[in-house]
Amino acid sequence: MQRIETDSLGEVRVDAQAYWGAQTQRSIENFPFGAMERMPVGIIRALGVIKQAAARVNRRHGLDAGLSDVIDQAAAEVAGGKLDDQFPLVIWQTGSGTQTNMNANEVIAGRANEMLTGERGGKSPVHPNDHVNMGQSSNDTFPTALHVAAVEALNRELIPALDKLSGALSGCAIAWKGVVKIGRTHLQDATPLTLGQEFSGYAQQLRNVYDHLRHVELHLLCLAQGGTAVGTGLNAPEGFAEDMAAQIAELTGRPFSTAPNKFEALASNDALVQLSGTLSTLAVALTKIANDIRLMGSGPRSGLGELELPANEPGSSIMPGKVNPTQAEMLTMVAAQVIGNHQAVTVGGMQGHLELNVFKPMIGAAVLRSMHLLSVGMESFAKRCVEGIEPDRKRIAELVERSLMLVTALAPEIGYDNAAKIAKHAHEHDLSLRQAALALGLVDEETFDRLIRPGDMV
Amino acid sequence: MQRIETDSLGEVRVDAQAYWGAQTQRSIENFPFGAMERMPVGIIRALGVIKQAAARVNRRHGLDAGLSDVIDQAAAEVAGGKLDDQFPLVIWQTGSGTQTNMNANEVIAGRANEMLTGERGGKSPVHPNDHVNMGQSSNDTFPTALHVAAVEALNRELIPALDKLSGALSGCAIAWKGVVKIGRTHLQDATPLTLGQEFSGYAQQLRNVYDHLRHVELHLLCLAQGGTAVGTGLNAPEGFAEDMAAQIAELTGRPFSTAPNKFEALASNDALVQLSGTLSTLAVALTKIANDIRLMGSGPRSGLGELELPANEPGSSIMPGKVNPTQAEMLTMVAAQVIGNHQAVTVGGMQGHLELNVFKPMIGAAVLRSMHLLSVGMESFAKRCVEGIEPDRKRIAELVERSLMLVTALAPEIGYDNAAKIAKHAHEHDLSLRQAALALGLVDEETFDRLIRPGDMV
Amino acid sequence: MQRIETDSLGEVRVDAQAYWGAQTQRSIENFPFGAMERMPVGIIRALGVIKQAAARVNRRHGLDAGLSDVIDQAAAEVAGGKLDDQFPLVIWQTGSGTQTNMNANEVIAGRANEMLTGERGGKSPVHPNDHVNMGQSSNDTFPTALHVAAVEALNRELIPALDKLSGALSGCAIAWKGVVKIGRTHLQDATPLTLGQEFSGYAQQLRNVYDHLRHVELHLLCLAQGGTAVGTGLNAPEGFAEDMAAQIAELTGRPFSTAPNKFEALASNDALVQLSGTLSTLAVALTKIANDIRLMGSGPRSGLGELELPANEPGSSIMPGKVNPTQAEMLTMVAAQVIGNHQAVTVGGMQGHLELNVFKPMIGAAVLRSMHLLSVGMESFAKRCVEGIEPDRKRIAELVERSLMLVTALAPEIGYDNAAKIAKHAHEHDLSLRQAALALGLVDEETFDRLIRPGDMV
Amino acid sequence: MQRIETDSLGEVRVDAQAYWGAQTQRSIENFPFGAMERMPVGIIRALGVIKQAAARVNRRHGLDAGLSDVIDQAAAEVAGGKLDDQFPLVIWQTGSGTQTNMNANEVIAGRANEMLTGERGGKSPVHPNDHVNMGQSSNDTFPTALHVAAVEALNRELIPALDKLSGALSGCAIAWKGVVKIGRTHLQDATPLTLGQEFSGYAQQLRNVYDHLRHVELHLLCLAQGGTAVGTGLNAPEGFAEDMAAQIAELTGRPFSTAPNKFEALASNDALVQLSGTLSTLAVALTKIANDIRLMGSGPRSGLGELELPANEPGSSIMPGKVNPTQAEMLTMVAAQVIGNHQAVTVGGMQGHLELNVFKPMIGAAVLRSMHLLSVGMESFAKRCVEGIEPDRKRIAELVERSLMLVTALAPEIGYDNAAKIAKHAHEHDLSLRQAALALGLVDEETFDRLIRPGDMV
Repeated sequence: MQRIETDSLGEVRVDAQAYWGAQTQRSIENFPFGAMERMPVGIIRALGVIKQAAARVNRRHGLDAGLSDVIDQAAAEVAGGKLDDQFPLVIWQTGSGTQTNMNANEVIAGRANEMLTGERGGKSPVHPNDHVNMGQSSNDTFPTALHVAAVEALNRELIPALDKLSGALSGCAIAWKGVVKIGRTHLQDATPLTLGQEFSGYAQQLRNVYDHLRHVELHLLCLAQGGTAVGTGLNAPEGFAEDMAAQIAELTGRPFSTAPNKFEALASNDALVQLSGTLSTLAVALTKIANDIRLMGSGPRSGLGELELPANEPGSSIMPGKVNPTQAEMLTMVAAQVIGNHQAVTVGGMQGHLELNVFKPMIGAAVLRSMHLLSVGMESFAKRCVEGIEPDRKRIAELVERSLMLVTALAPEIGYDNAAKIAKHAHEHDLSLRQAALALGLVDEETFDRLIRPGDMV
Repeated sequence: MQRIETDSLGEVRVDAQAYWGAQTQRSIENFPFGAMERMPVGIIRALGVIKQAAARVNRRHGLDAGLSDVIDQAAAEVAGGKLDDQFPLVIWQTGSGTQTNMNANEVIAGRANEMLTGERGGKSPVHPNDHVNMGQSSNDTFPTALHVAAVEALNRELIPALDKLSGALSGCAIAWKGVVKIGRTHLQDATPLTLGQEFSGYAQQLRNVYDHLRHVELHLLCLAQGGTAVGTGLNAPEGFAEDMAAQIAELTGRPFSTAPNKFEALASNDALVQLSGTLSTLAVALTKIANDIRLMGSGPRSGLGELELPANEPGSSIMPGKVNPTQAEMLTMVAAQVIGNHQAVTVGGMQGHLELNVFKPMIGAAVLRSMHLLSVGMESFAKRCVEGIEPDRKRIAELVERSLMLVTALAPEIGYDNAAKIAKHAHEHDLSLRQAALALGLVDEETFDRLIRPGDMV
Repeated sequence: MQRIETDSLGEVRVDAQAYWGAQTQRSIENFPFGAMERMPVGIIRALGVIKQAAARVNRRHGLDAGLSDVIDQAAAEVAGGKLDDQFPLVIWQTGSGTQTNMNANEVIAGRANEMLTGERGGKSPVHPNDHVNMGQSSNDTFPTALHVAAVEALNRELIPALDKLSGALSGCAIAWKGVVKIGRTHLQDATPLTLGQEFSGYAQQLRNVYDHLRHVELHLLCLAQGGTAVGTGLNAPEGFAEDMAAQIAELTGRPFSTAPNKFEALASNDALVQLSGTLSTLAVALTKIANDIRLMGSGPRSGLGELELPANEPGSSIMPGKVNPTQAEMLTMVAAQVIGNHQAVTVGGMQGHLELNVFKPMIGAAVLRSMHLLSVGMESFAKRCVEGIEPDRKRIAELVERSLMLVTALAPEIGYDNAAKIAKHAHEHDLSLRQAALALGLVDEETFDRLIRPGDMV
Repeated sequence: MQRIETDSLGEVRVDAQAYWGAQTQRSIENFPFGAMERMPVGIIRALGVIKQAAARVNRRHGLDAGLSDVIDQAAAEVAGGKLDDQFPLVIWQTGSGTQTNMNANEVIAGRANEMLTGERGGKSPVHPNDHVNMGQSSNDTFPTALHVAAVEALNRELIPALDKLSGALSGCAIAWKGVVKIGRTHLQDATPLTLGQEFSGYAQQLRNVYDHLRHVELHLLCLAQGGTAVGTGLNAPEGFAEDMAAQIAELTGRPFSTAPNKFEALASNDALVQLSGTLSTLAVALTKIANDIRLMGSGPRSGLGELELPANEPGSSIMPGKVNPTQAEMLTMVAAQVIGNHQAVTVGGMQGHLELNVFKPMIGAAVLRSMHLLSVGMESFAKRCVEGIEPDRKRIAELVERSLMLVTALAPEIGYDNAAKIAKHAHEHDLSLRQAALALGLVDEETFDRLIRPGDMV
């Protein structure tokens, strides 16, 4: 069963069950990328919020109260995720996101019309452009949706996951503050530190990224809404921008405000580029952390063997009994994709032309995917890896014992050049540091034993 | 309803309807990224092909004929896409793809057991590891699947789409070989060329990429299969690698052969990195082409206005009657993501550790997504944009007429410096080139009219 | 003439005129990349500052006052750029920058020894390790030098250049606030705005980046110094980290402080990664701005022709009289390299291993080169392009006049669908908007003239 | 002492000693980036070759023989590197490289005039545009120079360095084919292989890149020369393109030919993009190789300790006796920069506008720098690292002995599940594999000893 819908290009046949209209249907047909490439639901729900806010604000500017109410209700369903399946459009469409904005306009009108008349779809009494999109353009609405979706994902998913991983790492830093281990620089033995100190560095990395995320959030909280087609606000009433930001803030509970310059807010996506850059820094930090953990967990018999990672699954289809650092592998793969997505966002961000950057759906989808991957990845890594790590204290102690770099503690007393001779002698003759030091006569026993105490060197 | 499945870590509850077993189930629970992040079906189907080939080859090396037959049949169902829904695992798992390989082993065993016993799942009579995975490791099987999937996507999707767009552009080159237009370098007016010549350059760009793709295909046709766990081929019988490549070649109709060095084939993914780099070059070319087309199509009244692009949909939710170059926008967004994916692949490709690169699922998924986006994107762009373009011959002729850079044709006769004076004089006094040339007395009428013929300058 | 210098590996011959010693000489020979690949002088001078600070702080911890004084003086010469030619080492060396740190230690010791004894070079009375490097390791000193150099470049070069360009763009925004022009979205004609509004968006983009730079500066102001070899501060006296930060702050006049966690400060370079990401965002913004300007300046006769850019040089070796947007081309090339450098920094930043990231020289050099290119590029673009731009007011007015998208102002009155019909009719029959509107009878003259006033639409 | 030079914009003062003229001087002043940013000499010398070729070809098309001779001689000096110091211009200039082309035209004219008249500089009797640049435009000449420079760097530097490193790795593969060692996948112990096999994989990686480089060379051998300003060949005589390619081939000894489509050759730089992508693949391979080597060389006492790398210099300014894998660090830093440069090239390559891509100097400089860094880096890594590596055979044997993954060889006999039980039991009770196997009674002694022979498993 199909019905006829129309737009300025003419008639289009639409499935009778669908709430959407002609423009959505055209986009389905013009961009056949398949269901795996759908516009992220975070953007759809943010559009629901915006349309709800607009219904309320427009009422104060002449929109019929009855229409306002019903648009508000229908939009709330979109915002709440009840109509997710009515958004079949893909990321790869017009670069302004116009078709997804029209998808929202059409679905909300179609649903509102159903509420009012019992028949879904159509343009009357509620018109997708004249009523649902009143005072708006895709050019200000879609970037607003991207900011709203990003701020929601940041606060609901990313920051909590970051906190969880941060907490897990800090927990390790505290728990293992007494575990003295050998340090390694250039992957070569160095002076000792504690395992807790090592993990405290990881926690600090995440704390720094947290700080950067909170800073870029300030830019994301500025909304384009009210700029309409080119930033001038044509066809939006006086104060519309400010009212919309306030209404969206009320609906979401986040301190959104109107962007100080709407021309920038339409023509560039720099806030999302900077967010993406910060996600890339996070990916860099996570790669370092996960790499270290799998390196220290290498073995069990022919690696560094300092950490035992939890065995979540059999590791090999051919090697029986193998256990692999799969959570670390997942997280570093996620990080690689996030770094790649940042490149995509950068390439899109730089290509704005005049009044509008037309890489918005790609940028929005890439940033939201990066946030999702990082969120699930960090939480899983915290829960299924970090929280289950056990240090192999015996192995750790053995490695400290054997190291030559403890000689560094002698340098202030006997000079760098003499200390170097001892380390070299020990290495060449396979001696302990103590044996070599005494053999060369460069330090006496008492001094050696006073200075070379790993526990004092951390 | 659930049943109990087991692996080397113990028991796991699995939905009774599922064909998969314990290891698949563990992975579902350990990597909760959601359905939008599923492993691409191209990889799943390639695993079906490999398992089918293995069933046949293993029969010659001691696998019971009855088991071989039933594995062959079940694997053929996977290869044919009938069991796609039995592959719920996501990209973000162990970096060797072991869990997806085990998913295939388990589903094929589970389906084969059903054929033999009427009960789905389990490890008997067909065992996922001992029979379905016989002679294989994930470490050689998964990269083999990535190569098979990439070669299939190349030949079934990407090359046909490239050919279609290439053909459309060549068609324009021929159709418009008589349309003389102004050239532009540095976005500034330059000497003329034909619109056909301009499009012939685009077609050449794609022809070059075709050539590079066919070259990298040679590397992709080399398969890791037979290297087993670390490249030595342990537990695979003599000749297994060669037999498997031959069998896969027979099943697919593509000239696969065994990789000359299995250590390289497991520890690196360089063939996929190079493929991804070539896709990125294609993205670069497509960006240039789509950008030019939308630039020449800019207007209708305040842009260059040389081309009329097809109007596939209404362009604006606020500006009535607007038509936008949406296919060009889609294609340049696709290109940006492909360039980003290449960065992800690069980051993954460089991080192999010793005998195995463990970024394989991410690399495979990113490359296949890039190929899919480019394929659909190019085909759609050809069909819905290039094939419908109409040059605005009147506008094109006007712009040639007005141009000052035709003066270049005078330079060999009157010298660069004098020709420059004419152009400058015309620009400053808003004259035509002819007026300026004669006013300055640097060339006579006859010479001017002989040399300045746009149609002769192309 | 050569002299003999020694290190823990033995004797090395050094040019008698050189101040450096054995380790510098070894590095020259081991990394033969040539003079164009030298370590940036910004890093060298920052090392001078650090060594000067260390001489003062070490005096309070037992360094002989006479040695402290002479080290202070020699280090001041390095900081002041007098000994730049004594730093022949290249970026591509050990990943900790140890060899450049030793270059500084040796040159300062060599110069200090010359002051004390008349003979340059050597290790006595001033020893490069025991005295100049006292309380330090390359592992904390080199990242400290990178932060100091970055903060200096930020404040001395980048921010002033950003301010200059920002100011130039804001000047345009003010000067041209009355110049009504056609807007363009999707490169298609849209509703009008003023040229001043357009430039105000560019200025806003730079203001946002300024804000992000000032935020990342807070992270850069945290110094690794005091962590010594692995972050524990072994061999540095109590309070050394804090004293060094304070001393460096005094010498530079910048509010440096000691990093809250030295393990993070050695093992990661995340502050530089985030800085680089912000430079990349700046590059994205500059690409957009420069692209717009050259697009609006395209012509002179066959382009948009809205802006006249200054003619700084002849544009073509073959086309006489051609003038090109060379400053825009320079700036977009700079931006591309900065975006690329960010990728290099990202790849380096993610590969820290355990206690030390060993991509420091590459990261430092790439970030400083990006800052230098952006600084000179922005200043030059401001001075030689933006400040000399003249709008072509006649052309701008003509384009507004012709546009069809002014129809948008009718939509709130007559509805989106009717307004679309007018625009379409005008386009198809080559009519003005007014003619089409009246021909279709969808609006009366009075209403049309009341609503369609470009000057009211901005 | 200065003299006056002129161009179409007027008079300019030039240092009397300089050979260059007005346009070069303007560029010096308009792009003040400093000497470290000079256009690579490889491009300058390639321009010398082109101008020499043009002098010869133009003689057949009317250029006075005397002028042809003297231009030929002066250009030969540029090609031979004698006038390198006459090319002060930087990379960051006009995007067509016009200013560097004019620099070459002016210097060659200036030097030719000196040969003829005793006075350097000027435009008579030899004129930079009319004679030296005869039949050429920067738009075809500069991309030709980039291809010539790239092909020269490929053959003179990169391929020899690749061959050297390839040879060194193959040498290791042969020398150590009997050294059985433990394999590691996921950084976890796996089944054994030989050290020679491991290195054979590295050699294969380079062989594959060699193949890709030779393929992209075919595209680079196609020259833009003859397209002149926009690809039509305006102002170049019939056959000029073919003659120039032949003449350049003769001068260089490389099989250059004329590009099949000059519009593509000017408007895109795809051949360089694809070259850069292949250099990036090489960087990926080198990162993997260098990482593995430093990982196997980690220690000396607390790492994997399988390889001893040569000690080229003292490793630490604070830890006496430390030796670090500095050549590996250099090489991985080089690789990171090459990967970054590829991103810059990609961003530049995608932004061609209509008849000309104006990111040519950046693209050319980035590609040549990448080639230089890789060339010196690979040669140095081969000579100062790979050729000096010694395996620690005792350590290697110990690690094999201890490993649990030899259990894999039991699986075909006793089944995957039973083999897994043995490995697990051994791990939990700190037993050898043999002890665990016998303790569990899953295999008898004779079978165990027959199957578990590391030397047979490789």
